[in-house]
Amino acid sequence: MQTANAPEFMSEDFLLETAPARELYHGYAAEMPIIDYHCHLPPAEIAGDKRWDNIAQIWLCDDHYKWRAMRTAGVAERFCTGDASDWEKFEKYAETMPKLLRNPLYHWTHLELKRYFGVSGRLLGPDTAKSIYEECNGRIRAADFSCRAIMKQSRVELVCTTDDPADSLEDHRAIAADKSFSIRVLPTWRPDKALAAEKPAVFGPWLARLESAAAMRVSTLDDLLAALKKRHDFFAETGCRLSDRGIDTFFAEDCTAAQAAAVFAQARDGKIPSPEEALRYKSFLLHELAVMDAEKGWTQQIHYGALRSANARMLKKLGPDKGFDSIGDWPAAESMARYFDRLDQKGRLPKTIIYNLNPRDNELVATMLGNFQDGVTPGKLQFGSGWWFLDQLDGMARQIEALSQLGLLSQFVGMLTDSRSFLSYTRHEYFRRLLCNILGGDMARGLIPNDLPLVGKMVQDISYNNAKRYFGF
Amino acid sequence: MQTANAPEFMSEDFLLETAPARELYHGYAAEMPIIDYHCHLPPAEIAGDKRWDNIAQIWLCDDHYKWRAMRTAGVAERFCTGDASDWEKFEKYAETMPKLLRNPLYHWTHLELKRYFGVSGRLLGPDTAKSIYEECNGRIRAADFSCRAIMKQSRVELVCTTDDPADSLEDHRAIAADKSFSIRVLPTWRPDKALAAEKPAVFGPWLARLESAAAMRVSTLDDLLAALKKRHDFFAETGCRLSDRGIDTFFAEDCTAAQAAAVFAQARDGKIPSPEEALRYKSFLLHELAVMDAEKGWTQQIHYGALRSANARMLKKLGPDKGFDSIGDWPAAESMARYFDRLDQKGRLPKTIIYNLNPRDNELVATMLGNFQDGVTPGKLQFGSGWWFLDQLDGMARQIEALSQLGLLSQFVGMLTDSRSFLSYTRHEYFRRLLCNILGGDMARGLIPNDLPLVGKMVQDISYNNAKRYFGF
Amino acid sequence: MQTANAPEFMSEDFLLETAPARELYHGYAAEMPIIDYHCHLPPAEIAGDKRWDNIAQIWLCDDHYKWRAMRTAGVAERFCTGDASDWEKFEKYAETMPKLLRNPLYHWTHLELKRYFGVSGRLLGPDTAKSIYEECNGRIRAADFSCRAIMKQSRVELVCTTDDPADSLEDHRAIAADKSFSIRVLPTWRPDKALAAEKPAVFGPWLARLESAAAMRVSTLDDLLAALKKRHDFFAETGCRLSDRGIDTFFAEDCTAAQAAAVFAQARDGKIPSPEEALRYKSFLLHELAVMDAEKGWTQQIHYGALRSANARMLKKLGPDKGFDSIGDWPAAESMARYFDRLDQKGRLPKTIIYNLNPRDNELVATMLGNFQDGVTPGKLQFGSGWWFLDQLDGMARQIEALSQLGLLSQFVGMLTDSRSFLSYTRHEYFRRLLCNILGGDMARGLIPNDLPLVGKMVQDISYNNAKRYFGF
Repeated sequence: MQTANAPEFMSEDFLLETAPARELYHGYAAEMPIIDYHCHLPPAEIAGDKRWDNIAQIWLCDDHYKWRAMRTAGVAERFCTGDASDWEKFEKYAETMPKLLRNPLYHWTHLELKRYFGVSGRLLGPDTAKSIYEECNGRIRAADFSCRAIMKQSRVELVCTTDDPADSLEDHRAIAADKSFSIRVLPTWRPDKALAAEKPAVFGPWLARLESAAAMRVSTLDDLLAALKKRHDFFAETGCRLSDRGIDTFFAEDCTAAQAAAVFAQARDGKIPSPEEALRYKSFLLHELAVMDAEKGWTQQIHYGALRSANARMLKKLGPDKGFDSIGDWPAAESMARYFDRLDQKGRLPKTIIYNLNPRDNELVATMLGNFQDGVTPGKLQFGSGWWFLDQLDGMARQIEALSQLGLLSQFVGMLTDSRSFLSYTRHEYFRRLLCNILGGDMARGLIPNDLPLVGKMVQDISYNNAKRYFGF
Repeated sequence: MQTANAPEFMSEDFLLETAPARELYHGYAAEMPIIDYHCHLPPAEIAGDKRWDNIAQIWLCDDHYKWRAMRTAGVAERFCTGDASDWEKFEKYAETMPKLLRNPLYHWTHLELKRYFGVSGRLLGPDTAKSIYEECNGRIRAADFSCRAIMKQSRVELVCTTDDPADSLEDHRAIAADKSFSIRVLPTWRPDKALAAEKPAVFGPWLARLESAAAMRVSTLDDLLAALKKRHDFFAETGCRLSDRGIDTFFAEDCTAAQAAAVFAQARDGKIPSPEEALRYKSFLLHELAVMDAEKGWTQQIHYGALRSANARMLKKLGPDKGFDSIGDWPAAESMARYFDRLDQKGRLPKTIIYNLNPRDNELVATMLGNFQDGVTPGKLQFGSGWWFLDQLDGMARQIEALSQLGLLSQFVGMLTDSRSFLSYTRHEYFRRLLCNILGGDMARGLIPNDLPLVGKMVQDISYNNAKRYFGF
Repeated sequence: MQTANAPEFMSEDFLLETAPARELYHGYAAEMPIIDYHCHLPPAEIAGDKRWDNIAQIWLCDDHYKWRAMRTAGVAERFCTGDASDWEKFEKYAETMPKLLRNPLYHWTHLELKRYFGVSGRLLGPDTAKSIYEECNGRIRAADFSCRAIMKQSRVELVCTTDDPADSLEDHRAIAADKSFSIRVLPTWRPDKALAAEKPAVFGPWLARLESAAAMRVSTLDDLLAALKKRHDFFAETGCRLSDRGIDTFFAEDCTAAQAAAVFAQARDGKIPSPEEALRYKSFLLHELAVMDAEKGWTQQIHYGALRSANARMLKKLGPDKGFDSIGDWPAAESMARYFDRLDQKGRLPKTIIYNLNPRDNELVATMLGNFQDGVTPGKLQFGSGWWFLDQLDGMARQIEALSQLGLLSQFVGMLTDSRSFLSYTRHEYFRRLLCNILGGDMARGLIPNDLPLVGKMVQDISYNNAKRYFGF
């Protein structure tokens, strides 16, 4: 039963609530190509032009957002990460759908169904599960449905994957060498494990992998830095322009090279440093990692504030990154300032994107940027788009509002998928619609000039041009 | 003087700004019964079918919200908690009313006047004080105006009061035995005083009361746990399905039973444990209290983050809970995670509702839930509706937004009054109007499907069905 | 290219989105005089009736908001604080303008152009820079364009500057003695340097200045208090009614007079006290400073939460207050409560306005007020309007929302410029438009009564009457 007083769900004007918003989106944003400068796509899948058997494989094999939602709805683990069949998992997800109203998954799911499978005018639910499953699977079996085809259809121009210093990057090299595929796939330098001195089970094996990749012994901190530098150079040769790190909070304690070396020596031998020692070591290394990036003109990304693996029982059962993380609340302002200040004092502050996980830090981050903008690189410090839990309408709108009021929205490098799925390019569409709705709404309210080319240019810059210029692609 | 461009205040479509919102509220929400699963009504008043002499007695004898507002407006304490006459207090409140525009009291007051006294089309103020006072008092003197009558008129089906383990529950038993009254009145287990080891003036007398209620000596921690268990069983027999605790922050330090027993022994003797000792003891007990609830399938409620009795002068003069509390800002994420994780590891995590007092924690709480949803009980961990200071339009809307974007709004057990007043059932109406306005607004904007039964079911679930199922009533 | 679906930018109905909002603003708010109870105008400039050569001098010589925005846009320091010509600086600012869409500078700049220079219907940008520069400069050269003329044109009735206890206040006395100028210009007591015991480079020279101003030796803490008292009396004689302090967080540790005296003695001798000692000393003095204010019936303003001078390189190069500060995140609730409670216990709590810099504290602050409202002075504790980074639409709206829901908006003393520029009186207009938009929006939605005189009175009270009454002007 419909009311006469509401429009169709997810029409072509989805999220576009005013006429100027519609003019901006359809006239300026929709056709821009995509630079997805941060994602977690496996390069091997792109190299091999991955295909799937069914939609459950795409949607439900590696998506902790969906698993969390299903668990909350009372769906047993067997249908999330367990041994249920693909169809059973899909069926459970479809049953969960009507319970997801107002959750971003409701929008993402239906937008992906519409754009990649032509399913619209119907809602996914228990009644439609079977027919939509089969319809999607038919599409998946078509010759033109592969990961590369999806990327092309989505107007993707360039993606940056996320890679460990010890990774070989052979897939990136293979993709680059393949003249039949014009989308650039660049690696991103994510040396998180170099910081993990307090986790011998991670640190030791990783050092071994690094030694192998760098073809050198790593016995001392100097060795570590040298090995990282070798790999950093190799990443640069392979086209890398960005780095990334995930930290609880900004490590920015005093630590001399000698102190750091002592902690490293311990950790190298499998001893667990004290929390204070570990913090000092991390502070030292976090600084050095930024210096490396600055020297190459790279952009470092810093994701901070996640409380990870909060559920020990499930961590033991399933391992990390299975949907048992949440938002932390560590203090951030002083250490963040100290971290940037040290780099800036030495002229070694790279372009940086900060992603906070707790939205209560939005204004803190948006104003911190201004302390280190250098009048040389426009928007040198960036406030990253709503990350992880905040990658949704409220989270993105609040990030845009804080950045607008406290910084320069015009310089924003915009959206990224941060995703493991090839169907996530619709997130760029979603973001652009929201952006146009905000700016168009401002026009409709007389808050910004009634000047479509002016505002339209800003939309296009944030959608594409800024990222292209900023990262130096 | 009115403008032609604004509607009547508090019409039948109050808070319902779109057509779908009105259809949802009037078609789905309005007629649902009320389960008020958390309140502070005195069971003796229900047992005795309490009546009043005048509206000042109902409104102004025990409402720290109103006292705070009056003090802020410059009204002397004599007219708040002092010895002014009922009429004088009412008159002062009426004088304060025009100064309360945009404060929730403005809405609550006029909604109560309308629903329970038939006063509408007039605003409470100095000019109308006398006539409204008399009109209300006339209504109060009518034979059909008693607390039970109000509850029936409000379509209340069940309420849960808040009770101490040492309480006799004789009123609950009397009410249950009274066949003339069909509304269920259940106790809630609130063992806060068992945690108060650092307050000998509270702890000692409470232990004595507990000994009496449990008919046993409480000399050791084991005795305490045994006595609590006896009372817990008795509460269960009397229909209890929920517990509650009020804490500053989550107590989740390491503490062995022996350590806790030592702290208890000290406190039992009237010695004040050190802050570290008290914290360890509380950590131990907070865990044990949850285990008890889990064993019975109860739901525990946790209210955290209040900075209580901030004004020592007024505390000395008036005692606690007189309107001198405010919002705290202690860190919460790590200890909250640790608290839940320990219980979960032992398979002893009960259904839990978290109520935060500082809205900056909304997203933290909304994502913490997901770490411990077990795929068995739908919505096992709940994000409680806007508590205390947050029980107002902005606070409730932000809770709904965070829960929607970061969890499953559909599983929400919805509203509770948390009130000492029998007139507060209008808060359920207020909440439902807001909920329908949000969901109806989404429909009107094309953000959720134009499907009244789908969305209407969600409204009804949150208004009533979810609570009924979740608590096992 | 314009769309037909958006109004003119910055029309007479700018920010007024509903008919009641327009009725409130044009009918009640627009014509109210201005009491600007907190600003940073140099009294000497008012005494000398300052004039300018060009608009760059007014806009770009002392405005760290603009410098930050320009740096973020990639404008070199030479055009911000450096030796570029006035025209070059203006040109760079004009080039930056289109990049400032959605930043408050975009509104402030165009509103100032419209109100003080008659420039409207054109946007500042690279194409209009020269013509607007010359047009403004022509206006500036007119005989009737001076700081006093601007103040009169803006309907300013009274301003409070910000002054150090060691300042002579001779300009204030000269202005007061000048019968040709009727606007009152009062000093504000800002004794921040008395707290700076840990900064010998600040503390020593300041003590010397204080000795000179108070005409007494300051060898001991008692001397300091006596000298401050002398100056405090002198400020009072010169019309002072407000004090101010800027603190990281509330200093509220235990500290005896003897302990404070010992720390003072060290700092007097140029020794740097330990952080704990400094904190104790500050706690002691912050309390005493409030007591002085209470004795005179003054209002103290407390600005807390700024992380200042985060960029050491630029601090060294340019000194403080050049746009390298940001929002801090220190805990605040416990120490703030303790600070107020001590004063209240002794009956020495002055009227106080709290300004927080981190908006995540809005609700904490709004509820803290209620703990100390005394039922004597209406709105004794005030939640200050959005400060610094928060002096923009989102920041002000959120402050108004928190104050409304958690306190009494009606008692609010409203807007202040906090500015160094004589053109900033448009901020009062901006605030009033926002306030009317919020209240008018409430009327249009039926959330408050359709009663223009009732709501209009509230608008006028917040715009002007409350400040006049509250401060005792």
